[in-house]
Amino acid sequence: MFGSDNHAPAHPAILTAITSANTGRVGAYGDDAWSLRAQHALQTIFETNDLDVLFVGTGGAANGLALSLLCPPWGAILALGDAHILADEGGGPEHFTSGARIIAVGAAASRLTGEHLQQAAARYPRANVHSPQPRVVTVTNLSENGLIYTPREILDLSAVCREHDWKLHMDGARFANAVVTSGASPADLTWRSGVDAVSFGLTKNGAVCAEALIVFGKARNDAAAYLRKRAGHLFSKQRFMAAQFVAMLENGLWLELAQHANAMAQSLAPVLEAAGCTSMYPVEGNEVFARIPKRQAEILKKADIGFYPWPPSGDGVFRFVTCWQTTTEDIAAVKSALSC
Amino acid sequence: MFGSDNHAPAHPAILTAITSANTGRVGAYGDDAWSLRAQHALQTIFETNDLDVLFVGTGGAANGLALSLLCPPWGAILALGDAHILADEGGGPEHFTSGARIIAVGAAASRLTGEHLQQAAARYPRANVHSPQPRVVTVTNLSENGLIYTPREILDLSAVCREHDWKLHMDGARFANAVVTSGASPADLTWRSGVDAVSFGLTKNGAVCAEALIVFGKARNDAAAYLRKRAGHLFSKQRFMAAQFVAMLENGLWLELAQHANAMAQSLAPVLEAAGCTSMYPVEGNEVFARIPKRQAEILKKADIGFYPWPPSGDGVFRFVTCWQTTTEDIAAVKSALSC
Amino acid sequence: MFGSDNHAPAHPAILTAITSANTGRVGAYGDDAWSLRAQHALQTIFETNDLDVLFVGTGGAANGLALSLLCPPWGAILALGDAHILADEGGGPEHFTSGARIIAVGAAASRLTGEHLQQAAARYPRANVHSPQPRVVTVTNLSENGLIYTPREILDLSAVCREHDWKLHMDGARFANAVVTSGASPADLTWRSGVDAVSFGLTKNGAVCAEALIVFGKARNDAAAYLRKRAGHLFSKQRFMAAQFVAMLENGLWLELAQHANAMAQSLAPVLEAAGCTSMYPVEGNEVFARIPKRQAEILKKADIGFYPWPPSGDGVFRFVTCWQTTTEDIAAVKSALSC
Amino acid sequence: MFGSDNHAPAHPAILTAITSANTGRVGAYGDDAWSLRAQHALQTIFETNDLDVLFVGTGGAANGLALSLLCPPWGAILALGDAHILADEGGGPEHFTSGARIIAVGAAASRLTGEHLQQAAARYPRANVHSPQPRVVTVTNLSENGLIYTPREILDLSAVCREHDWKLHMDGARFANAVVTSGASPADLTWRSGVDAVSFGLTKNGAVCAEALIVFGKARNDAAAYLRKRAGHLFSKQRFMAAQFVAMLENGLWLELAQHANAMAQSLAPVLEAAGCTSMYPVEGNEVFARIPKRQAEILKKADIGFYPWPPSGDGVFRFVTCWQTTTEDIAAVKSALSC
Repeated sequence: MFGSDNHAPAHPAILTAITSANTGRVGAYGDDAWSLRAQHALQTIFETNDLDVLFVGTGGAANGLALSLLCPPWGAILALGDAHILADEGGGPEHFTSGARIIAVGAAASRLTGEHLQQAAARYPRANVHSPQPRVVTVTNLSENGLIYTPREILDLSAVCREHDWKLHMDGARFANAVVTSGASPADLTWRSGVDAVSFGLTKNGAVCAEALIVFGKARNDAAAYLRKRAGHLFSKQRFMAAQFVAMLENGLWLELAQHANAMAQSLAPVLEAAGCTSMYPVEGNEVFARIPKRQAEILKKADIGFYPWPPSGDGVFRFVTCWQTTTEDIAAVKSALSC
Repeated sequence: MFGSDNHAPAHPAILTAITSANTGRVGAYGDDAWSLRAQHALQTIFETNDLDVLFVGTGGAANGLALSLLCPPWGAILALGDAHILADEGGGPEHFTSGARIIAVGAAASRLTGEHLQQAAARYPRANVHSPQPRVVTVTNLSENGLIYTPREILDLSAVCREHDWKLHMDGARFANAVVTSGASPADLTWRSGVDAVSFGLTKNGAVCAEALIVFGKARNDAAAYLRKRAGHLFSKQRFMAAQFVAMLENGLWLELAQHANAMAQSLAPVLEAAGCTSMYPVEGNEVFARIPKRQAEILKKADIGFYPWPPSGDGVFRFVTCWQTTTEDIAAVKSALSC
Repeated sequence: MFGSDNHAPAHPAILTAITSANTGRVGAYGDDAWSLRAQHALQTIFETNDLDVLFVGTGGAANGLALSLLCPPWGAILALGDAHILADEGGGPEHFTSGARIIAVGAAASRLTGEHLQQAAARYPRANVHSPQPRVVTVTNLSENGLIYTPREILDLSAVCREHDWKLHMDGARFANAVVTSGASPADLTWRSGVDAVSFGLTKNGAVCAEALIVFGKARNDAAAYLRKRAGHLFSKQRFMAAQFVAMLENGLWLELAQHANAMAQSLAPVLEAAGCTSMYPVEGNEVFARIPKRQAEILKKADIGFYPWPPSGDGVFRFVTCWQTTTEDIAAVKSALSC
Repeated sequence: MFGSDNHAPAHPAILTAITSANTGRVGAYGDDAWSLRAQHALQTIFETNDLDVLFVGTGGAANGLALSLLCPPWGAILALGDAHILADEGGGPEHFTSGARIIAVGAAASRLTGEHLQQAAARYPRANVHSPQPRVVTVTNLSENGLIYTPREILDLSAVCREHDWKLHMDGARFANAVVTSGASPADLTWRSGVDAVSFGLTKNGAVCAEALIVFGKARNDAAAYLRKRAGHLFSKQRFMAAQFVAMLENGLWLELAQHANAMAQSLAPVLEAAGCTSMYPVEGNEVFARIPKRQAEILKKADIGFYPWPPSGDGVFRFVTCWQTTTEDIAAVKSALSC
């Protein structure tokens, strides 16, 4: 029930869009009207035409493609120790980048700061060929702990990036949830705050399969298209993915769904706390991380409330993820189970 | 109209299947009943349980994954000079394999034979570290020229492979078309004739997006799952792709659609020949390659009959691809245009 | 004076050997009598013929080659946090392995233990495709802090490796120094204790350029030769490197030189301590790591006693390396400077 | 006797230089006076300071490093079909470049021309992501058939490169021999004719081990140093290689030795021809390629005249390589054997 937002089916509007796109012969590999329309929708959302859109099949592919575009094979990538690219993508980033090093900085279960980056800059000095060479910083918004980065915090990171001529990438697998909570615009959360590229994911937010890498301004580069193709992520019938973007973005559905998921997480946390569980972090998106006493954990397991242990946050800590489909009945089921 | 089989929309049954799959929470990353059912369908089709199925996003990804599984980074891959992996996948095979060499053998626009392979074995001797080291042979069925390989021809290749301890991969982007024409079973066209892995594609045959790598017998290896993950091709909501396999395979739809496409190509060729064009090869699948006199080419372009020049087959040669959606009216349109 | 053992010139016997080898036409790429003789010398030293010898140009290349042989591109490598392969080889290991992940385990400035490895095995579970997949453990002997691993300690590591089907690699850039201090045989320090491959370096010990990867028993694999060739480390005139191995190994010179260097480090440490410096670790090889008060550090710098700060061991800590050429006068110079 | 120029020992001046360099403590990794002096010598030879020098261990490494610097992982490299990088470096170029494709253009056993390059540009169109993307051209001077490229011929290539924004690399494993025969200056043969980087080899010309990549003008890039380090080709005791450059270059020894080797080849060819053999190409360097009748081939083998069959030039063709150490007695031995 709360295992992950990708356990849910797709929102009905997504299916409608796929069906709408299933008519007539169109060009393959993105040469179609739906792809163009999706790109326009993204330009509108991000308030700029100075961007490239590369649809890909998974969030891991978007992250890998971004890193391969922004980091040379001999470079290094700075990320929080519990970053998705370190913990959950197999050897994906190394594969896409042809061997860039990922360096964990900062404490796990926190937010990356400019100070973390400055420490890394000091530890891995430029022009020392023996040392790994940071060239890219990657940050996840929502973070792996369900926390948001505000535009001010992102600016703090990008300022250090600019100082050292590093690039800044944002993993936005749950970007919509961060937009909703922060109240900041997609533009302010990305390029206006110095982000060079964002992995923009809608799959967790209710699509069947809709992921894209968006590259901004000076980071735009012809190489992106070649890198995507060689990774096997240029889809022949791209219209079907593009249609999902259109359905989500043109009328604000993506934010509505994220708003709902966030609200469900907000109502879940007090239910857990009332039953003796401890929230580990403020609930800023659609995830609740709670330390759950053994007895309560047993009860919830028996009641078949799906959820996962989250070892990076400590023993006895579990993660609950809400989504577009979570209902107040789901929350009530947790409450009811725990109050037995 | 005849530009490519991936210009067509999906068959309605595919949309129905996707919609059917869109219900309830299920495990992500293939831990769902649709994925299991699709795997069973493939086991039935191939008459064996001794296989692994790895769904991926594109045919290029299936090919790349196969080669990365079968060929070490320091090895070489033997392929016909006009093979898709050489001409049309950017640097994909090299990316997936971390740098294996592709060596073109045999003449373009032909079929690969055991003799071609023996020549390569002589030219690139094993244990000579200076020389590229062939370790895999890849063959496309339907070939890039629309020709089929029969089980006997595949056995001819695999015999040489076994002699040299090479693996044999088959690119089956249009495998259904080859099955229909050859009258041979999928098993006879693959593992029973010594094929280690086949890229099994349904996208060109009427799916939205349905591709898989199938690995047989002794070639099965845990590494495949890690290699797919790192390439960003493990889909979180895999049920939607699996459902397409189910829709295609369980009731024979995949062969029906291929049968239709092949028949349309059979009826297109004489229309072109009657108008002074020359078929370059026997029509054995859903593609017609024809040398078209200048005047006729102009006429067809004006009539907006979609088709592409095909330089590997020579100047003035064009490729026409039929598909599940091609109609007798489409063929009639060509005839009518040419008879003006 | 104490900056590094690779600041020193080569031992005269090395030059003599190179000159001796400079006669007559011989086969290139290792097909010569000197290479054979060097291989025999290594077989004698390691008390087994069940090994492969691959001469390479640098210690970094030996490490990279080892890891590329023992770890698949999608695998991960476990190493101490201050391991040379993490800190000082640029992106070398990733390059050689085509993108394997290096995971730091254990505290820096310590020794790797079986317990560290078991913790990693628990954290990165096999068959979880999302997780990095450890497949190789690498340990440095002498360690980066100048400490030795005894055969018992190595057995402790290899037992865990065998349990998880991991390989065990040893970086032996200062292997001779560990042999001398441990009193253990090269065989006991390596294959008899479960080491699969050792980077065997003589350059720091007084050669011009003499490095080799030695692969033992079941880890032997034809792939090694191909991997070396593609890395550009198969030398055409290999006799000149082989001759250096012969000069070092046939008459025990390599151990004599290491014995001397170790003794010099033993006499340096008390000199530093007497002047108010603190040794960070026991002196078990040819390196002294000492916390040096500011005043003394200034004095030593002014006296032009070459040595480097060693940040991994903390602020104010410096590393002194002795070598075959270090003299009692060098030690006296330190004493004299500090006693002013 | 004529097997290869790397079968020969080193010239005595090389040993003298190595011995001279073997004194005193110096900085490691190129931070020494010999390295600086070698760099100055190269600047003088090439008549410019606008170059970077990267010493590496082998010619294959120099080529690989060059290609990794000039070609992105997703790019393609154009080379003659019998180019050393295609035939004799294992999978080296793919390894160094992280998977760039090598495309054979032109006929084997010929010279690359601007026309060959234009054909490739037409066949592999820029911005078509499905197609391999040429980005670098590599040419060998002396060629693999012992032929020279003149500055005019190189300009013909570089003009096409500039038109398509491609880079131009020269493999100069036998560069000295080309300088001598062409009468052109090293500068005219390289950067003044549009060459971006040259693999400059002295090992075949009489050194123990002396290879460098030289990068010119706008192609200079900080990345080169990182790429070399990660490939394990930054030598700790670089002074010993640098000293060989100094010995060869400062007094013109490199050209003297090449002059001698070329002259020996000039005198060998007529000896072979007089005995019924056929020279395949003009002798423009230190190599003779001759079709040798069976009987004569048998005689030469029995007389233990070392030489190799050269299949790329056809059945019955053999290659003879002369070197700095070849004597008129060696030539006489061939004559004498054949006149029996």
